[in-house]
Amino acid sequence: MTDTTQTAATTDDGFRIEHDTMGEVRVPKSALYRAQTQRAVENFPISGSGLEPSQIVALARVKRAAAIVNAARGIIDEPVADAIVSAADRIIAGEHHDQFPVDVYQTGSGTSSNMNMNEVLATLASDVAGTAVHPNDHVNASQSSNDVFPTSVHVAVTEALIRTLVPALEHLAEAFERKATLWADAVKSGRTHLMDATPVTLGQEFGGYARQIRLGVERVNATLPRVAEVPLGGTAVGTGINTPKGFPQEVIAQLAEDTGLPITEALDHFEAQGARDALVEASGALKVIAVSLTKINNDLRWMGSGPNTGLGELHIPDLQPGSSIMPGKVNPVIPEATLMVAARVIGNDATVAWAGASGAFELNVAIPVMGTALLESIRLLANSSRVLADKTVDGLEANLDRARAFAESSPSIVTPLNRVIGYEAAAKVAKYAVAEGITVREAVVALGYVERGEVTEEQLDSALDVLSMTHPS
Amino acid sequence: MTDTTQTAATTDDGFRIEHDTMGEVRVPKSALYRAQTQRAVENFPISGSGLEPSQIVALARVKRAAAIVNAARGIIDEPVADAIVSAADRIIAGEHHDQFPVDVYQTGSGTSSNMNMNEVLATLASDVAGTAVHPNDHVNASQSSNDVFPTSVHVAVTEALIRTLVPALEHLAEAFERKATLWADAVKSGRTHLMDATPVTLGQEFGGYARQIRLGVERVNATLPRVAEVPLGGTAVGTGINTPKGFPQEVIAQLAEDTGLPITEALDHFEAQGARDALVEASGALKVIAVSLTKINNDLRWMGSGPNTGLGELHIPDLQPGSSIMPGKVNPVIPEATLMVAARVIGNDATVAWAGASGAFELNVAIPVMGTALLESIRLLANSSRVLADKTVDGLEANLDRARAFAESSPSIVTPLNRVIGYEAAAKVAKYAVAEGITVREAVVALGYVERGEVTEEQLDSALDVLSMTHPS
Amino acid sequence: MTDTTQTAATTDDGFRIEHDTMGEVRVPKSALYRAQTQRAVENFPISGSGLEPSQIVALARVKRAAAIVNAARGIIDEPVADAIVSAADRIIAGEHHDQFPVDVYQTGSGTSSNMNMNEVLATLASDVAGTAVHPNDHVNASQSSNDVFPTSVHVAVTEALIRTLVPALEHLAEAFERKATLWADAVKSGRTHLMDATPVTLGQEFGGYARQIRLGVERVNATLPRVAEVPLGGTAVGTGINTPKGFPQEVIAQLAEDTGLPITEALDHFEAQGARDALVEASGALKVIAVSLTKINNDLRWMGSGPNTGLGELHIPDLQPGSSIMPGKVNPVIPEATLMVAARVIGNDATVAWAGASGAFELNVAIPVMGTALLESIRLLANSSRVLADKTVDGLEANLDRARAFAESSPSIVTPLNRVIGYEAAAKVAKYAVAEGITVREAVVALGYVERGEVTEEQLDSALDVLSMTHPS
Amino acid sequence: MTDTTQTAATTDDGFRIEHDTMGEVRVPKSALYRAQTQRAVENFPISGSGLEPSQIVALARVKRAAAIVNAARGIIDEPVADAIVSAADRIIAGEHHDQFPVDVYQTGSGTSSNMNMNEVLATLASDVAGTAVHPNDHVNASQSSNDVFPTSVHVAVTEALIRTLVPALEHLAEAFERKATLWADAVKSGRTHLMDATPVTLGQEFGGYARQIRLGVERVNATLPRVAEVPLGGTAVGTGINTPKGFPQEVIAQLAEDTGLPITEALDHFEAQGARDALVEASGALKVIAVSLTKINNDLRWMGSGPNTGLGELHIPDLQPGSSIMPGKVNPVIPEATLMVAARVIGNDATVAWAGASGAFELNVAIPVMGTALLESIRLLANSSRVLADKTVDGLEANLDRARAFAESSPSIVTPLNRVIGYEAAAKVAKYAVAEGITVREAVVALGYVERGEVTEEQLDSALDVLSMTHPS
Repeated sequence: MTDTTQTAATTDDGFRIEHDTMGEVRVPKSALYRAQTQRAVENFPISGSGLEPSQIVALARVKRAAAIVNAARGIIDEPVADAIVSAADRIIAGEHHDQFPVDVYQTGSGTSSNMNMNEVLATLASDVAGTAVHPNDHVNASQSSNDVFPTSVHVAVTEALIRTLVPALEHLAEAFERKATLWADAVKSGRTHLMDATPVTLGQEFGGYARQIRLGVERVNATLPRVAEVPLGGTAVGTGINTPKGFPQEVIAQLAEDTGLPITEALDHFEAQGARDALVEASGALKVIAVSLTKINNDLRWMGSGPNTGLGELHIPDLQPGSSIMPGKVNPVIPEATLMVAARVIGNDATVAWAGASGAFELNVAIPVMGTALLESIRLLANSSRVLADKTVDGLEANLDRARAFAESSPSIVTPLNRVIGYEAAAKVAKYAVAEGITVREAVVALGYVERGEVTEEQLDSALDVLSMTHPS
Repeated sequence: MTDTTQTAATTDDGFRIEHDTMGEVRVPKSALYRAQTQRAVENFPISGSGLEPSQIVALARVKRAAAIVNAARGIIDEPVADAIVSAADRIIAGEHHDQFPVDVYQTGSGTSSNMNMNEVLATLASDVAGTAVHPNDHVNASQSSNDVFPTSVHVAVTEALIRTLVPALEHLAEAFERKATLWADAVKSGRTHLMDATPVTLGQEFGGYARQIRLGVERVNATLPRVAEVPLGGTAVGTGINTPKGFPQEVIAQLAEDTGLPITEALDHFEAQGARDALVEASGALKVIAVSLTKINNDLRWMGSGPNTGLGELHIPDLQPGSSIMPGKVNPVIPEATLMVAARVIGNDATVAWAGASGAFELNVAIPVMGTALLESIRLLANSSRVLADKTVDGLEANLDRARAFAESSPSIVTPLNRVIGYEAAAKVAKYAVAEGITVREAVVALGYVERGEVTEEQLDSALDVLSMTHPS
Repeated sequence: MTDTTQTAATTDDGFRIEHDTMGEVRVPKSALYRAQTQRAVENFPISGSGLEPSQIVALARVKRAAAIVNAARGIIDEPVADAIVSAADRIIAGEHHDQFPVDVYQTGSGTSSNMNMNEVLATLASDVAGTAVHPNDHVNASQSSNDVFPTSVHVAVTEALIRTLVPALEHLAEAFERKATLWADAVKSGRTHLMDATPVTLGQEFGGYARQIRLGVERVNATLPRVAEVPLGGTAVGTGINTPKGFPQEVIAQLAEDTGLPITEALDHFEAQGARDALVEASGALKVIAVSLTKINNDLRWMGSGPNTGLGELHIPDLQPGSSIMPGKVNPVIPEATLMVAARVIGNDATVAWAGASGAFELNVAIPVMGTALLESIRLLANSSRVLADKTVDGLEANLDRARAFAESSPSIVTPLNRVIGYEAAAKVAKYAVAEGITVREAVVALGYVERGEVTEEQLDSALDVLSMTHPS
Repeated sequence: MTDTTQTAATTDDGFRIEHDTMGEVRVPKSALYRAQTQRAVENFPISGSGLEPSQIVALARVKRAAAIVNAARGIIDEPVADAIVSAADRIIAGEHHDQFPVDVYQTGSGTSSNMNMNEVLATLASDVAGTAVHPNDHVNASQSSNDVFPTSVHVAVTEALIRTLVPALEHLAEAFERKATLWADAVKSGRTHLMDATPVTLGQEFGGYARQIRLGVERVNATLPRVAEVPLGGTAVGTGINTPKGFPQEVIAQLAEDTGLPITEALDHFEAQGARDALVEASGALKVIAVSLTKINNDLRWMGSGPNTGLGELHIPDLQPGSSIMPGKVNPVIPEATLMVAARVIGNDATVAWAGASGAFELNVAIPVMGTALLESIRLLANSSRVLADKTVDGLEANLDRARAFAESSPSIVTPLNRVIGYEAAAKVAKYAVAEGITVREAVVALGYVERGEVTEEQLDSALDVLSMTHPS
């Protein structure tokens, strides 16, 4: 928290003069923020990017709930609280987000962003209340940057996981499931080590993808009990100095009610401010999803490879005109975009772990970059999952004939013949088929097994039915 | 799975000749393994290291359970099964681990290690049974490397998490909790951004460390439902070709009974062989523990820094004589070792994620390195947690006087005086104390507040009681 | 490269209709871009962020040079080339960057961004030329996305390394060097394992920091020969199909002349398009710089810790008013921001490596995210290095008395007394000093060595001169 | 450095009693090491693994050179030095490596391993000299763990890079180059985005792989000037206290002469002990090689995929009998092993960076894990590169007919017909060919272009010559 006994004077050149305990600061006339924010703007010209909008909203939510509880306890006046609530509602609705110019790369506690919020809400609330609402004494009352800022990260991440990522993953899983149903009997060659194996169905593969994504949802959900634990109430060092007893519990109840999120108070406030481990954990779950998407999209790209020199089992929807040199060339652009998203999420996970290890004693001091990296990962995964479902998976078309032909051409389909002509003979058949470039059935015939009556055509039909190999009984 | 119609002939030079479908192989006379293993030994002279012993044991457990079920279903004869069970029991007991020379860096499915186990068990079982037990037809019956090998990784990891890591973490948490109790009232200066803050107690800090470790246990447990899901039953490509219906369920039930572990069958066998996502997830949980240990051990090192030019709040037990140049110098060697463990676990997590993304279609092909990296991480974390508890945390001694003196010297303790002399005056006091290098109490007196009767000695006693600041009411 | 036979028609609602080979596209009336860009905007609603401005500029530079060479060779007309050059100059000057709305997460070859540039330049050039300039036939003539887009990344990265990062690092090194000179004789306690060691000077420490940063420059320079190698001329698959012989050499010569950068043609065009290894290498150099900055900034934070309960050897400039609860509390905000930058750079390195491994056959398909991550890392490192130099290092003040007092309090300074009173006695002195909380000199006196004449005051002065211990002869 | 005034007494139970300044230690009777080592063995029961053998050798080399210089300067007696040299030569020759049982996860300075070497050499040298050689006073004379141990890492890494990795990479590059020559005219379909593109030759692709590996050598070489800089001479804190002037320069000259390596003295000894940045840099170069190998081996695996349901352009040598279920199935086991090596190297790089950031003030304290991770990465990359060259690349066979057929089936080969029948008609041809599953030539004929005389057979021969498209003129 920051001390700001601010007074403003206007000048002629588009700036006004604000004062704080360190002296004068020139703030743009139109700015809703004040001296503290302006100092931070000048101190941190590093990335040019501020907090993620979802964290700005979450921070406003915390301030809103705190104002209500502060008023109920008589710490601030009702009209002041009402004005703060009204101001916060505007931020929550997405207004004035351009008034948060503080860089992500700032003080590691996020104090400058907390003060930015305090100042903007104070300015907006003063207008509403018709009286001076103070950034510290009123908006920040009973709080500290050290508990409020990380709380806003956890609230934003919890909300983004539950409201943004999980529905997007479910949307994608459903797209895969529809294809799994559609292609339940679309037989194709299995591939292990990239080599021809016994048959599977396209439906089985897409069912596997759906399951990977559904498990991603389970993974996210498994982290929530810890991610939704917030440090609010610890104030400066975890002891809760300067906060009335009961305050954090009431604010958290208000927040939970306002948002419908399963937010709880940290069981141990020293862990909750000294460490940010739950964010590292959440990032780990996102990394698994990135790994899942990498596997799935590589499969899709390979099945769609061709049309003539690749596998050509799937046709990926054409989204953009192809090459001016090479007519008809359409590329799997959404899978590629998703693979790049995965690379970013992997990188963000490294950032979050590195930052997560940056705490000392009573405070982690790499919180803003953790919040930003996590919220970016969630946003990218959610958006690319939806785009992947809508623009690629839904429009996939299978080349069923080619897929079945591949299945039938795999030498491994000789397997069920073991029971009829024995393993040794079956092996001979398989090798002959590969060497001659013919199917296993053709090889059986060519090698005289049918002619010699060692296997009947009926037995051959039954043993070489590639579809039945995908559901062995 | 691999075809090995092996016959052995002995030579005079310490080798015997074994045959397989690719021809002759020279195998050391004394080796329990056979041609497949020997080929792998020659193919992969890369790291010189094999599988982790715990995975060798887990693989033997799978073979043991499979033999029992294969016999019950009449797939192999009872005496053969009994001999395999007896052979497997010896491996499980830790015998013959030198008979597993196949390198970690081998075929990505672990086929060579699966065959190594099949061959060793076949040799041992043949001795017991007095009849030829075949590596493939008997030991590997109803199985494939593609489902058995990853199953052994999941069983080993599940066991190591539950039996090795969690107890070690609980042991460490208890050590921290004992100190938290002991030092419940040991007041010290809080530090945020490394700067002087309001007081906390050493007990509060150690309670926070204990909570971090307890949360580590929760994190591990949260991944278990997915880690304990095994692909057994999918055989070659997930369809379960060549495995009788019901076989995997019975083997898994047997395994669960034998081990007491919560092992379950994969809900979707195509996900379960195409992806190894649950291992990536487990590694993520280990990474969080590494991050927790990094924060904690850095705190311990800093509190133990000195004795004269550091913080000197703790004395870390002397474990090794100090420097020959610098008498009395003892270093925080266990925290340093633990920090290096954390660095390794972070690296292993990167390896596991990279490998986890290496699947294509029906099989991930980087399983051995995933198993090895994960089991190493678990082993290192468990061992270093126990060493940290026993050789460092238990023997920590607090410099209570110094800690209290620091608490009292922090200018931030002026905070409660706000209520008595006002914020402005309190700030003046704090700045004066820092500038003059005196305590806040001395500064209050020096600035005449007591003399002028603005604050009484009693009020001063109450407001500046650093211990009460750690439990504000 | 993409085929775009575009025709435009206007509508009443703020959009115009453009046609390409896939049909109609509604493009905002005011947009300089056309159908291809619009399709990409609709296909990739993923991150909301486009390419880094420095890459947009680099891409325009490539187009400019290509136009000149195309005209010289008669492939396009002079007036058309002049118009393209004039259009490109505006982009290079920073105009119209809002006309590049294509998301980073797009097709992995960057084709959409290449087409975006082709379309914008075509529109601008058409205005200048008074005749229709075609995005493909004119702007993209003799080029392919597959060679042009990665070329633009390498040009942008080369320029950013040489013009942005290296000068910023040198600026920071100079700031450290000034302090190294200033504090050449400012003796302080050395610390190894965080424990009291023999003395060093602040100047020696700051000289070490300067050297780390100077080595960072060497590391960057060591990668340049490979980073500055561009794939231009390979066109679609590395063979240079559809590009006239000599074209890439002339364009590269033009680019080198225009930019003054040491750009060269790739020695092997198949490596140069199939792999992006040089970008992975450059990112590795940035990672080392991030590691250097982490060590340095942690040292700065610890030396500045306090004022009363930390080391307090340095005073870090006050940049923002401190806590409203804790008067006088000022935090090391720039070092913290820099540490967060380091965490981001570490993460970006993971992203770049992951993406770098994403190539298959004739093309890497994760180029846009590699370019963005690298250029972001460079920008963040450069900006934070300058801010660190200007706002923190330049204003550092040393607490020389405290630093010297620490040096003198370190028990390790007993070392030179070995020669006078022997190792055993010296050890006794050191331990006594630590136990009693007195200096080594006081301990020598207290233990009677002076009184007994075993050491003279003069000898003591000479042996315990902490400054001379920092430059042993 | 550690103080060890050791005296030994024997007991009846396989142990002898040694004394040091902390009291009695029971050491195995047969051990060449003494009390310090034994304490470390007991303190660090963490991984069960010690230093890499190549670092043990390098440490012995440093001790050997130091003994020679210490004798020349009269610091130790000639016979003692001769005995130490003789003892060190045995370690360098690979003897007694079982006498180095100290765990990697030990004190972060490697002091325990340095003392282990001092003790073993003292014991061996005492035997040779017939007089007591002291671990500290003689073997460690003029040295400190803090400069000697990291020096041994840099010497070992320098040697491993130059003598182990670079030759292995060159060996692999040569294997690729032989194939590039062999297949210079082996035309095949290019693939970008995995989709059919214009033709390339297998030789061009293998030339690209060779170039990637050759660039890997350049990358390694580019780091050597910094990796070969050693901290020797800094002793405890970088000031060189307790080392005679000129000592490090002479030892380094001796080391350079003994090893033939380009070892130099650190320009700044404070950087050289406070940071280990050059190791982070070296690891970054290894990571690039891992990324290169990932791309190359994925290409090899895909070209070898099949035989019938994959690309089937290459036949990868059969090294192990295939599946017992699926006859004829042979997997690309060496490429898979190499991909797992790459995953490990990526992970080790993360470990090294994390450890590299662990320094504070005058010492990095995560040196042992950095040395181990780097030396492991080098060993794995070197061994897998040789195995890849010898067991896979050398034995690769191309399916030339299939490769050419693919090239001819790619719709993109229509490109040169643009000049004859125009782009529009060419596009029509390409789309027709894909739709009908015929070649471009067949499509041209089927669509009547030849019949109508729009293109002659000769023109068709010339335009559709896929080989000439790989070397456009």
